[in-house]
Amino acid sequence: MSDSFHRMWADLAPVGRHPDSGGYRRYAWTGADTDCRAWFRAQAEARGLDCETDRNGNQWAWLGDRTAGDAVVTGSHLDSVPDGGAFDGPLGVVSSFAALDELRRRGARFTRPLAVANFGDEEGARFGLACVGSRLAAGQLTREAAFALRDADGVSLPQAMEAAGHDPEAIGPDPERLAGIGAFVELHVEQGRALDLTGDAVGVASAIWPHGRWRFDFRGEANHAGTTRLADRRDPMLTYAETVLAARREAELAGAVATFGKVAVEPNGVNAIPSLVRGWLDSRAPDQAALDTVLAAVERAARERAERDGTDVAVVRESFTPVVEFEHALRDEIGRILGGSVPVLGTGAGHDAGILSASVPTAMLFVRNPTGVSHSPAEYAAEDDCVAGVRALADVLEGLACG
Amino acid sequence: MSDSFHRMWADLAPVGRHPDSGGYRRYAWTGADTDCRAWFRAQAEARGLDCETDRNGNQWAWLGDRTAGDAVVTGSHLDSVPDGGAFDGPLGVVSSFAALDELRRRGARFTRPLAVANFGDEEGARFGLACVGSRLAAGQLTREAAFALRDADGVSLPQAMEAAGHDPEAIGPDPERLAGIGAFVELHVEQGRALDLTGDAVGVASAIWPHGRWRFDFRGEANHAGTTRLADRRDPMLTYAETVLAARREAELAGAVATFGKVAVEPNGVNAIPSLVRGWLDSRAPDQAALDTVLAAVERAARERAERDGTDVAVVRESFTPVVEFEHALRDEIGRILGGSVPVLGTGAGHDAGILSASVPTAMLFVRNPTGVSHSPAEYAAEDDCVAGVRALADVLEGLACG
Repeated sequence: MSDSFHRMWADLAPVGRHPDSGGYRRYAWTGADTDCRAWFRAQAEARGLDCETDRNGNQWAWLGDRTAGDAVVTGSHLDSVPDGGAFDGPLGVVSSFAALDELRRRGARFTRPLAVANFGDEEGARFGLACVGSRLAAGQLTREAAFALRDADGVSLPQAMEAAGHDPEAIGPDPERLAGIGAFVELHVEQGRALDLTGDAVGVASAIWPHGRWRFDFRGEANHAGTTRLADRRDPMLTYAETVLAARREAELAGAVATFGKVAVEPNGVNAIPSLVRGWLDSRAPDQAALDTVLAAVERAARERAERDGTDVAVVRESFTPVVEFEHALRDEIGRILGGSVPVLGTGAGHDAGILSASVPTAMLFVRNPTGVSHSPAEYAAEDDCVAGVRALADVLEGLACG
Repeated sequence: MSDSFHRMWADLAPVGRHPDSGGYRRYAWTGADTDCRAWFRAQAEARGLDCETDRNGNQWAWLGDRTAGDAVVTGSHLDSVPDGGAFDGPLGVVSSFAALDELRRRGARFTRPLAVANFGDEEGARFGLACVGSRLAAGQLTREAAFALRDADGVSLPQAMEAAGHDPEAIGPDPERLAGIGAFVELHVEQGRALDLTGDAVGVASAIWPHGRWRFDFRGEANHAGTTRLADRRDPMLTYAETVLAARREAELAGAVATFGKVAVEPNGVNAIPSLVRGWLDSRAPDQAALDTVLAAVERAARERAERDGTDVAVVRESFTPVVEFEHALRDEIGRILGGSVPVLGTGAGHDAGILSASVPTAMLFVRNPTGVSHSPAEYAAEDDCVAGVRALADVLEGLACG
């Protein structure tokens, strides 16, 4: 089993890797993405699977009659964030093919159709929206909204698809395809350290935490940094700074996470008191009440400091995703297959599995990440744990798809 | 007197004014700058003054024999910061011509040569270095360093000069010209509220505060904002935020000013804990000891917080200007001319007068700024105060240049 995993991993490793950063730049519908798709097709063909690309640019490698219904599907994505790691996405796709190899080695007899999937544009690095392929298929992104997406160079999503040889005219909801799927299981490297702390190689997802993004606009008055008395200032950088510290404090109290990772300043001059500091808060929590508590407390802290600084605060919710509970029946079945001791854990990250869970019984397996580092060239999982992940996925697929 | 001031002010008002912001974009060696220079030449010619542009692009309008030595020079600059106000610079140039008109109205007889000057590229908005014209003349900026200056589009200073019709080959120190100047007096709108607080229309500068710029690099670890436990984070945004608040606190304690007005974040993604937050501190104080105290305390606060956050801090001094004490003899003479009650005040802003003070006896007059707002379209001085400034400048020039 580990041989086929290793060969695939080595084959995929150089694709889209940036020589300076050592990170991956596999953005949707670019040359690196095309190379990943060619790799996927080659893997499918080498196994005698029937490879197709659906109307939304997702790839499927089928074993058995794909029109028979009640299919078991596994897979993940191959695209990356800017300078991302090797594991987020590819570990799931490579493990899927390796699990199929393992099942064949075991001589498994399939009673349901099986597919390995590669969902397009999961990270949203190029067009700013995550899970475009699965959202389109599930009808959670309209054709009109998808056509309006543009990358940093002004290239639209349909233009990018067309340039990569995919006809954009056909994109849109794909309910028949989803109706033919009985279960979707996505294996993914963990993006935190929960499994490292419990000492397990593999875990099962319980839910995706509710999460949202809020834009805080702190407005003050532009002025000369050298000549304006402190008492005469209305400096929004001070209000921003206090709010950053409040977000950390409140998240800690609520058992949530909260991050100001992006900021934009006007005029952003060394000798100018800013007129505007715009900060984006990303916050996620195990439940809605905790998330509401964090946001209310951060807003209150911002407004209190703004009063002292003579600044204004406006808060806009830019996006919000409610909690996604993975189907309990499928999760329990996976628990039985893997043995009762497999840990069940929540996650703060979005996934194609979260999108599809509205239409299809869906589950996720996580593989231990010893450092918890993700979306970075330093993202890592140990070889033994990857192999344990493949074995667990093979067990699950065998339990679900083999009579 | 106020008639000639008004005509000039109205004539100059539309040049380089941006229709949306209402602010001025008069950057060195652009079309707006050329228009300002044409305006200066027209004002000189209308008064029968001998107008020349020196090797470094500074304009001079001479009354009397410019080779005679011991000249009295007044003036300021016409360029602006991005979306700057109408007063910073132009008030000094317009007031200089208006003061000359007033002296002629008084029938003053000049015993020393007099010149009105327009120094090039004072704000440094285009090439990132302030006071380029006066620095070059005073030998405080080498020809090589000036040739290496580039604007945001990659255009070099000599290319920009040449495109505007000025031969860049001649730039460099101009000691003979400076040796022929017996006194330089620059009138400028105040950039704080000291005169508003004392209730005076006009004041005299004592010194330019020592000031510096320090770049703080806060380094942590890029990671997923949704999945990384708070305890596993090394988030440099937290260290930055604490340092911003410390700078304000320490400046207040020391009677100084300190500002973080510019920040750059990597990767600057909404769902990414930053790997790097780079913040620029601008700080100025009445004396060197106070400035040293502020910087040491801010650095200490940054390092203490960095230890808690698991981040690193590196501090680089990017620029530093020691205190500039204006010549006491000239300041005292101006005090006698204007009457003993004129307030004497320090300033946190740099000026051509500060550069030239190393080579020439130099003084500054400030005109009250009721809001203290500067480097902004809202920058303002009352009409009566502008007229009082012209009268004071005329008195000073009469006292210095008329026997």
